[in-house]
Amino acid sequence: MAVGLTGLPDMYRVPGIRLGTARAGIKKPDRRDLVIMEIAAGAHSVAVFTRNAFCAAPVTVARDHLSLSSPRYLLINTGNANAGTGKSGVLDAQHCCDAMAGLAGCAASEVLPFSTGVIGESLPVQRIVAGLPAAYAVLSATGWEDAAHGIMTTDTVAKGSSRQVQIDGTRVTVTGIAKGSGMIRPDMATMLAFIATDAACDVSVLQQCLSDAVEKSFNRITVDGDTSTNDACVLVATGQAVSSERDGHAQTPITSTASVAYQVLCDAVTAVCTELAQAVIRDGEGATKLITVDVQGGANDAECTQVAYAVAHSPLVKTAFFACDPNWGRIVMAIGRAGVENLDVSRIAVYLGDVCIVQDGGRAPTYREELGQQVMKQAEITVRIMLGRGACQTQVWTCDFSYDYVRINAEYRS
Amino acid sequence: MAVGLTGLPDMYRVPGIRLGTARAGIKKPDRRDLVIMEIAAGAHSVAVFTRNAFCAAPVTVARDHLSLSSPRYLLINTGNANAGTGKSGVLDAQHCCDAMAGLAGCAASEVLPFSTGVIGESLPVQRIVAGLPAAYAVLSATGWEDAAHGIMTTDTVAKGSSRQVQIDGTRVTVTGIAKGSGMIRPDMATMLAFIATDAACDVSVLQQCLSDAVEKSFNRITVDGDTSTNDACVLVATGQAVSSERDGHAQTPITSTASVAYQVLCDAVTAVCTELAQAVIRDGEGATKLITVDVQGGANDAECTQVAYAVAHSPLVKTAFFACDPNWGRIVMAIGRAGVENLDVSRIAVYLGDVCIVQDGGRAPTYREELGQQVMKQAEITVRIMLGRGACQTQVWTCDFSYDYVRINAEYRS
Repeated sequence: MAVGLTGLPDMYRVPGIRLGTARAGIKKPDRRDLVIMEIAAGAHSVAVFTRNAFCAAPVTVARDHLSLSSPRYLLINTGNANAGTGKSGVLDAQHCCDAMAGLAGCAASEVLPFSTGVIGESLPVQRIVAGLPAAYAVLSATGWEDAAHGIMTTDTVAKGSSRQVQIDGTRVTVTGIAKGSGMIRPDMATMLAFIATDAACDVSVLQQCLSDAVEKSFNRITVDGDTSTNDACVLVATGQAVSSERDGHAQTPITSTASVAYQVLCDAVTAVCTELAQAVIRDGEGATKLITVDVQGGANDAECTQVAYAVAHSPLVKTAFFACDPNWGRIVMAIGRAGVENLDVSRIAVYLGDVCIVQDGGRAPTYREELGQQVMKQAEITVRIMLGRGACQTQVWTCDFSYDYVRINAEYRS
Repeated sequence: MAVGLTGLPDMYRVPGIRLGTARAGIKKPDRRDLVIMEIAAGAHSVAVFTRNAFCAAPVTVARDHLSLSSPRYLLINTGNANAGTGKSGVLDAQHCCDAMAGLAGCAASEVLPFSTGVIGESLPVQRIVAGLPAAYAVLSATGWEDAAHGIMTTDTVAKGSSRQVQIDGTRVTVTGIAKGSGMIRPDMATMLAFIATDAACDVSVLQQCLSDAVEKSFNRITVDGDTSTNDACVLVATGQAVSSERDGHAQTPITSTASVAYQVLCDAVTAVCTELAQAVIRDGEGATKLITVDVQGGANDAECTQVAYAVAHSPLVKTAFFACDPNWGRIVMAIGRAGVENLDVSRIAVYLGDVCIVQDGGRAPTYREELGQQVMKQAEITVRIMLGRGACQTQVWTCDFSYDYVRINAEYRS
């Protein structure tokens, strides 16, 4: 069950981007499992990758290639993560890039590989190479929906986000897709996310834009506290948006993070990333609820984040949400173990939705169990924690912990 | 199901200690829920408490009383944790101590209160006070078994450990009981543990002995990463062991941690604490397996502990153990996200029991799936992780993550 997700929104095309999806039989027959994203020459691409020390072979290769060239093709497979595969895994990833380069007539370093699926098994290179021509043949500017399906693993729904904004008289599009459902506690980016815009933007500005957006979105979600070996998030700016003010010529490139244009673009990218990140949580393994943990009144951002994750990772809090139990005792337990120095618990207040459940560190005098239970019945719940120490705040999104999380992960070999 | 636990061992009496247990109807009728431990005058007692900032009222009161007097009575109730109860919770705990003091003719500061059970509800003081005379009337040196039952909450079996050692010609006994099954990630001591010895020992030496023992036992276990609000561990030394070498007089007190006598006593206390700590994990909520995470070859103890807990807390690793799936990909994922600086994954080896599954950072060439599956069928499994960075090592004990963990915590209000 995916909380409040009813399918993909309208996915605006991004001039300069084409996508092709094929069925290569990588793990299961007859499912979309191979995606090519073609990027027009002249585009800028930036990426962030997992900080897991056991990063997968494609992450190593993609990072290398990105440092050498501006990518023309992203090559994404599901069904096999090519992680924990050592040196042969790196050779396998390079082999796939070589095949893609041969097909498209570009350099292998202009191809970035991405993999997701089971860890520790050899990448079925031959099946991927054999499937490439079919994906290449259907490259299309309208290929976003198929691609969103083509990168799924334990996801139950495809995840996409798209919006258009005006920058200096130019209508600019930002469109992205993501996958991820378990092993979600991104420490840089979620499992896999691909976002493109037709804005014109310097590459250093674009990198800043992605870092800012990821920090507020993918780096603020958790399903199980487990950081994937394959996390990657790519942002491409094709610069092909057409300006009405400049008689159909290209938009003036954004060259400074201090400009209004940057802020508008960054807000749009952040909005797309946030919608994708929340979609990952809504479709978290076994999730029945989307939980926003909103920590306010911290002395600094770090302690707000500490408290938010202590609550969001607590199996006891998460099982209580699954049971629709307004068990504030477990919430204060989690706050108390977050490790905040000199925490004065007598200043703490906790709200479940709009209901004050904890005041001055104890049960709020106005609180009645029925009020908490009414909030708990909702599919989307905000836990607001006021620390009473300062003016900093942060938000983290997570889901509850159900029988199905255990079932999915006892049955699926990730 | 409690992994490999078949009931209490023989519990040796400790001269100077008597225990009494009663049914006070605190949460449920007709179950043992109130325990008194009487300590002879002249004994030394030391304790360690939870570091959770939201510590419970009895923890606050017990800490205060311990700083004022040498305790004569420990007063323990289950069914209600008296946590998150603010100032009235502290008054309630003091009220119970007053009643105990009145009954026994001692000062209220000579009574230490301990509570475990549901968080956030008022302590039923009247029921506890009414139950005290019955517990007091049955005080007995053989009361350990009843007391071990009387402190249980979601525990499915009572937990005890007892042994005798020779110190300078004196036979010394160490006997302890503990409770705990969920909300287990002690950061000082487990939920509740009470250990007594008839050794004669200076109080500062005794405190060091408890700290050393706890660090290697209760502080090395985790069920769910959630640190309780009520953790407490008490060690009492009555000094009543009789020396055969000194014609039936008391043993010469241990006054230095550098002595052989200290080492013998500390080893015995550590052994009792370790057996109790492992019993808590064997009876972990929903546990079907006891997992020892043994990290070797670290550059320092801290990074060994980091890696051990990253593996022991990973829901993906724990569900794989539940499923008897030798999913080494999830183990390396957890090692990789532990945050060890400059971790060279190509030096890492992982063993499941005696089977090498990961070598040089990838799947071991000798590994076959059947070998891993054979180990996974066992109820007690050691995961050995060799970091290849130095000579430090640590062990952490945990259990797997099953449907029953979710069921227990969705149904039970802790």
